[in-house]
Amino acid sequence: MRGVAIIGCGMTRFGKLERGLVDLLVEASLAAITDAGASERGFDAIYVGNMCSGELNGVTGVASVLADRIGLLPAAADRIENGPASGGSAVKAGFMAVASGIHDLVLVAGGEKMTDTPTGRLADVISTLLHPYEYACGATLPSLGALLARMYMEKYGVRRESISLVAVKNHKNGSLNPYAHFQKEITLDDVLNSPVVAEPLRLYDVCPVSDGAAALVLCPAERASEFTDTPVIIKGVGHATDVQSVTERDDPTVLSALRVASEKAYEMAGVEPGDVDVAELHDAFTILEVVQSEDVGFFRKGEGARAVEEGETWLGGRIPINPSGGLKARGHPLGATGVAQIVELTWQLRGEAGRRQVEGAEVGLSVNFGGFGNSILVHILERR
Amino acid sequence: MRGVAIIGCGMTRFGKLERGLVDLLVEASLAAITDAGASERGFDAIYVGNMCSGELNGVTGVASVLADRIGLLPAAADRIENGPASGGSAVKAGFMAVASGIHDLVLVAGGEKMTDTPTGRLADVISTLLHPYEYACGATLPSLGALLARMYMEKYGVRRESISLVAVKNHKNGSLNPYAHFQKEITLDDVLNSPVVAEPLRLYDVCPVSDGAAALVLCPAERASEFTDTPVIIKGVGHATDVQSVTERDDPTVLSALRVASEKAYEMAGVEPGDVDVAELHDAFTILEVVQSEDVGFFRKGEGARAVEEGETWLGGRIPINPSGGLKARGHPLGATGVAQIVELTWQLRGEAGRRQVEGAEVGLSVNFGGFGNSILVHILERR
Repeated sequence: MRGVAIIGCGMTRFGKLERGLVDLLVEASLAAITDAGASERGFDAIYVGNMCSGELNGVTGVASVLADRIGLLPAAADRIENGPASGGSAVKAGFMAVASGIHDLVLVAGGEKMTDTPTGRLADVISTLLHPYEYACGATLPSLGALLARMYMEKYGVRRESISLVAVKNHKNGSLNPYAHFQKEITLDDVLNSPVVAEPLRLYDVCPVSDGAAALVLCPAERASEFTDTPVIIKGVGHATDVQSVTERDDPTVLSALRVASEKAYEMAGVEPGDVDVAELHDAFTILEVVQSEDVGFFRKGEGARAVEEGETWLGGRIPINPSGGLKARGHPLGATGVAQIVELTWQLRGEAGRRQVEGAEVGLSVNFGGFGNSILVHILERR
Repeated sequence: MRGVAIIGCGMTRFGKLERGLVDLLVEASLAAITDAGASERGFDAIYVGNMCSGELNGVTGVASVLADRIGLLPAAADRIENGPASGGSAVKAGFMAVASGIHDLVLVAGGEKMTDTPTGRLADVISTLLHPYEYACGATLPSLGALLARMYMEKYGVRRESISLVAVKNHKNGSLNPYAHFQKEITLDDVLNSPVVAEPLRLYDVCPVSDGAAALVLCPAERASEFTDTPVIIKGVGHATDVQSVTERDDPTVLSALRVASEKAYEMAGVEPGDVDVAELHDAFTILEVVQSEDVGFFRKGEGARAVEEGETWLGGRIPINPSGGLKARGHPLGATGVAQIVELTWQLRGEAGRRQVEGAEVGLSVNFGGFGNSILVHILERR
């Protein structure tokens, strides 16, 4: 298998943006291509991670449209859809394309345009991720998040305040990230006094609806020096699926797909959880960051919330999580997120993350979460 | 790059079916897994080719749902969307997964459930493939097909009857295919007297709206003998993109993306057009089979219609095209088609195609066509 390097990355600011999906993908893609110094090169393939271009934006075959719009014809172009993990899956597709030897210079972009869809319609579209029987019983993604939080709190004797500290931390990080949807710090009281979404989750425990796009340029590791002095290598990729129905899971506080995916990624990368210097986890709800930080192996089960309380996952802590602000503060344009996580890690590993830089970071890990944890991707990156 | 073998295949009958999308994918997948003798094996990954699961069927993350439904957890699962070429792109994704070494045993499925969507709504969804400016000017896929036919007839001095013979041939082939949507022969007069869709295309020049699914099992070529004595090898893969806007093309009677994609596939496979024994082309409109048979290198430009007239592309001819009945008679459930083409070629190369068998076929080629030719995939298969 050929080694695969990230030689360029870029993204739009996330937020409520006055541009369409294709425009967002174009902006992020051109930024990544420019960053790679590859504007004059012929690209072989494009993978676009996107969940709802047809449902929300009236575009299908969006990857071909992007190839046309940015002048990368006749590059092969495919859209990869894996719910909110579409971005991570697109990175994996790009990885496979280069690793297999079928393509050399590959663009991976992820994007979603969500804010111009009315909330009710958006909720309907996003609910297509749920098991139909659970949806019929009233489940929504936030209500499943709330049930998970309640179950976790009871099982491990954790207070809701500890979980909500994730939002405080991630807003603080977001305030240091010029690409974040929210660049404003909040207090624990702000979270606790925000409107209820689904008890115990309040508005500030939940990620916003955002527009945005992010992109990467990949090439064979042995050719990276043609483009950059600071290549970042995709060392490990793990991807696993769990039962869709949350009620069928033995212990819903354990994300089995994450355990399998991270095990595969660690093995492939030849690293262990303790080797990871910085991580981007999928904090669509605050509780998800806590649970993921355990199932990815950073903390023992039931210890993730304590780690937030004790500062271990804050910038300057033992294993900073979501220095970008995460989904909570950077925002969560569904298909963009998995790519944006890897853009952030690339910046971190290159030492280009500005005021939110994790000093000396050499190994980064991302978790992108699809459905309600029924499809999870883990990527492990290393600076060369 | 590791060699990749097809070790199992299966499909549903195509047509107006009383089952949902996931049920169709399940049926085809289980048929392919059974055919591979892999029912007791653990699968590593699943790729689903599908264009409109969200828009038409209210399901996103359908690949994860399929993994769950057929008991292939924790296999990685992704949906690949590339318009009507989604199936071909899913086959390519499965190929890359095995070729790269990241996955060993891989299921590729393609499916679409279309017939329970009202025609007007379906037309709206399919029109999301068009360039927005051309759509605003009244273009639809059939009207673009009609313009192409008209331009081709004038440029090369071809009569419409010659083009419509494609429908007669493909219905004859479909009458020999128990999986075909239409298993009934038609005459040239039937085509010429059928209702006008967009002059010169009449109803029988145009593929039907169908439901259906098809599936393949792939593994590394060196492991194929664990499963089967008749592996079929994916020798060449080509995939290219053209401008979306048909009016921007130098010569719309030439499918540039097909020329690039087929050149790549021939080079990778180490074969030439004259080596191909059987082909499945994307005859969504009769004119498309004619044009593709030229741009893929079987005939000189302007000679494709004559070849149909002279029997060269019929069963028993020099290069039989669409022995399955093609999109015209087998049917065209969008995301299923690219996979079904490769299922048909696998049966042909194994000598299992029954009354439509192309005798002694050793090399097969498929063309899957996305948008209005702005994304095209070519696969070349060889029996070992």
